[in-house]
Amino acid sequence: MSNDVRAAWRPRPGTPIDGVATPALVVDLDAMERNIARMADYARERGLRLRPHAKTHKSGEVARRQMAAGAVGVCVQKLSEAEALAAAGIEDLYISNEVVDRVKLARVAALAGRVRLAIAVDSMPGIERLAAAVAAAGSEIDVYVEVDVGQGRCGAAPPAAGALAQQVVAHPGLRFAGLQAYHGKAQHLRSPTEREAAIRHAADLARAAQASITSAGIACPLVTGAGTGSFPFEAASGVWGELQAGSYVFMDRDYADNDPPAHAPRFEHALFVKSQVMSRGVAHAVVDAGHKAHAVDSGMPRVHGRDLGFANGGDEHGVLTARGDALPELGETIWLIPGHCDPTVNLHDHYVVVRGGLERGVVEAVWPVDARGCLV
Amino acid sequence: MSNDVRAAWRPRPGTPIDGVATPALVVDLDAMERNIARMADYARERGLRLRPHAKTHKSGEVARRQMAAGAVGVCVQKLSEAEALAAAGIEDLYISNEVVDRVKLARVAALAGRVRLAIAVDSMPGIERLAAAVAAAGSEIDVYVEVDVGQGRCGAAPPAAGALAQQVVAHPGLRFAGLQAYHGKAQHLRSPTEREAAIRHAADLARAAQASITSAGIACPLVTGAGTGSFPFEAASGVWGELQAGSYVFMDRDYADNDPPAHAPRFEHALFVKSQVMSRGVAHAVVDAGHKAHAVDSGMPRVHGRDLGFANGGDEHGVLTARGDALPELGETIWLIPGHCDPTVNLHDHYVVVRGGLERGVVEAVWPVDARGCLV
Repeated sequence: MSNDVRAAWRPRPGTPIDGVATPALVVDLDAMERNIARMADYARERGLRLRPHAKTHKSGEVARRQMAAGAVGVCVQKLSEAEALAAAGIEDLYISNEVVDRVKLARVAALAGRVRLAIAVDSMPGIERLAAAVAAAGSEIDVYVEVDVGQGRCGAAPPAAGALAQQVVAHPGLRFAGLQAYHGKAQHLRSPTEREAAIRHAADLARAAQASITSAGIACPLVTGAGTGSFPFEAASGVWGELQAGSYVFMDRDYADNDPPAHAPRFEHALFVKSQVMSRGVAHAVVDAGHKAHAVDSGMPRVHGRDLGFANGGDEHGVLTARGDALPELGETIWLIPGHCDPTVNLHDHYVVVRGGLERGVVEAVWPVDARGCLV
Repeated sequence: MSNDVRAAWRPRPGTPIDGVATPALVVDLDAMERNIARMADYARERGLRLRPHAKTHKSGEVARRQMAAGAVGVCVQKLSEAEALAAAGIEDLYISNEVVDRVKLARVAALAGRVRLAIAVDSMPGIERLAAAVAAAGSEIDVYVEVDVGQGRCGAAPPAAGALAQQVVAHPGLRFAGLQAYHGKAQHLRSPTEREAAIRHAADLARAAQASITSAGIACPLVTGAGTGSFPFEAASGVWGELQAGSYVFMDRDYADNDPPAHAPRFEHALFVKSQVMSRGVAHAVVDAGHKAHAVDSGMPRVHGRDLGFANGGDEHGVLTARGDALPELGETIWLIPGHCDPTVNLHDHYVVVRGGLERGVVEAVWPVDARGCLV
C-alpha cells in the first residue's frame, strides 16, 4: 500500500517541470546525454574499454544508454545490484568488490549462469569459496584479483597478486581476467598535480602486481579501475586498459570542486534535487529537502543558479542564507546540486527525467532507480 | 523485477540470526519493547500526552505498538509519510511541519477526510492556502502554530503567534490545536546542564507565544514538542503537554553519546546494522556496510560489543581497526550501532526483527519500512 503512495507522487510524462512535487530527483537529460557521449568518445579515441560504475545510477535505463554509446558493460558494487540490473535487462556486469558469504556466492554463481558476470577477489578463502559455488552451479565467471593501489581498503598487496592469480587459474570455472586497481582516495584530491602523483604511485603498484602475475607464468589480460576524478591519469599511464568512472554521468558538487586537469573532458551537472521554500524567516529561508533527500557524506549541496548559502537543516530541511543573491520567497523552487551523487540517488525511488532544461523543461520519462537499496 | 530482488533477500521468520544476509537492518525486539514501555510509563506518570515521532521508524507496526502502549498517535514530517502510515492503518497523524504547495495541500485536505490529521503552520500564506484546500475538500484539520524556540529553522517569532492563531480560527475547517515548539539543536548538546538551559530558554519563548495567543482572546489548548535528548526538561517545565520524542525507540550512537540527566529513563540500543568482514588486511578489516547502509550525518557508527575503531570506507564499506579487541577475521559478523537512526532506517526496505538477542536470536518477523523514501 505504501508503494502506491510513492507511485502516486510520480509525475506523468508531459508534466511541465513546475508541476513536479518536491523534493524530487531530477535528471537534466540533455546534459546527461552530453556527459555519456563525452566519456564514450574519450575512451574510444584512446583505445580504452569503458565500463562505467553503475553504483552511481543503479539504473538499467542509464546503463543501456552508456552501453549504446560504447561501454562494454557496467560495474556494480554489490551482488543484489547485479541481480537488480540483470532483472532490468543488463547482461554484462562486473561486481568490482569481494563477496565471501557462501549463501551469496551461490547466488553469484547462479547469476553467472544467466549473464556475463565478473567479480573481484582478494583472498585465498574468497577464491576457494567462489570456486566451490561456481563448481556447484556449473557456471563460469570472470575473476579480477584486486590489489590495493593506495586506497587502504580492500585488495591484496601487489606482490601477492601472482599467488592469488595462480589460485584462480587452478579452478576451471574461474576465468582469470586481470587486476582490479582502483584508488578511491585519489578521486577527491583537489589539485590535478596531487591526483596525478597518486595515480603515478598506483600505476607503480599495479605494475608490481602485473609482474608478480607474469612471473607466476600467467598472462594478465587487463587492468581495470579509475574514477571520475582521476581517469585522465590512468588513461595516460599505459597500465589501465579499462576505465570504471561512474559519477561523470551526473557530476556532483564534490567532483566539480576538483580543479580539472588540462586536456580532459568536462562534465556538466545533470542531477539535481528540486526543492521548495516552505518556511521563510527574516534572515533565512527553509527548503523541504534535507539529508533524507540528498546525501551529505561529501558535504552540503550547492544551490544551482543562485548565490545562496546552504546549511544542513536535518533530515527534511535545508537552511538558505543570502549571499550574492537575495533570499527566495515562500513557495519558490530551489535547485540543489547534491554533494555526492551515488548515495543521493540511492535515497530516491525514481528519476524525474526532464528534456529542455530546468527552467522550462518538460518531464520526458520517469525511470525507476532499479537497484535502490540493494545493499546485499 | 528489482522489487523481486529485494524481496528475495528478506529472511523468513524462524531464520536464525546467523542466516540473515548482510548488510541488514536488525531490530532487537526485546530491547525495543522495553524502550516503548519506558517512555509510555514516563509520560503516563506525569500526565503528559505522548505522540512519538514516526520519522524515526516510518513503520505502521512500530507506530501501532507505541499507540497500544499509550501514545495518542504519531508525528510525521512529510505528507507522503502521513499517507503511507495511513495506508498502513494508523489513524491519528500529525504532520509537525509546514506544507505550502497547493497540490500537496489538496492531498493534505483529502487525507484529513480519512484520518484524524493535524499539521503545523508558520505563515499567513500557508494558513490561507491550507484553509482553501480544506474548504474545497470539505474536511477539517487540527492546526498547530509553529514558533521558533531556538532551532533557527521553521516557525514564527513567538510574538507573532497570536496573529497566526487568529488567522487559523477565522477559518471553519481549521481547528486551532496549540503550539508546535521543538528545539532540535538542544537535542545533542552533550551535557544535561546545557540541554536544560536551552529548554529553559525555549520554555520562555513558548510562554511568550502562549501569551500572544491568549491576549488575542484565543485559548491555547496544548504545547507540543520535545525530543529524545531533552524531553525530561520539557516535561518538568509545565509548559509542554505533549512529548514528540522519536529516537528513544531505537537509540542511536549519537543520542547515547549525550551525558544523561539524573532521574530520566534510560533507553537501550535496539537498532543495529548487521555486517560482515569481507576483506582483511594486515592492520585493518573491511565490512560490507558503508554509508548506503547507515547514515553518517551524525558521525560514524559504533561497533557493538567489541572495542574496534570504525572509519568511513565509502558507500559500501567500513574500515575496522584494532583497539582493545583484536581485528576480526574474514567472514565474521560485526554489529554496528548507527550514528543516526532516522536516516539509517530510511536506507532500508525492511526491518529484520529478532527475538532473543543478537547472539543467538531468531527472526520473529520482517516489517516493511512503510514510509521509506516518502520525501514529498
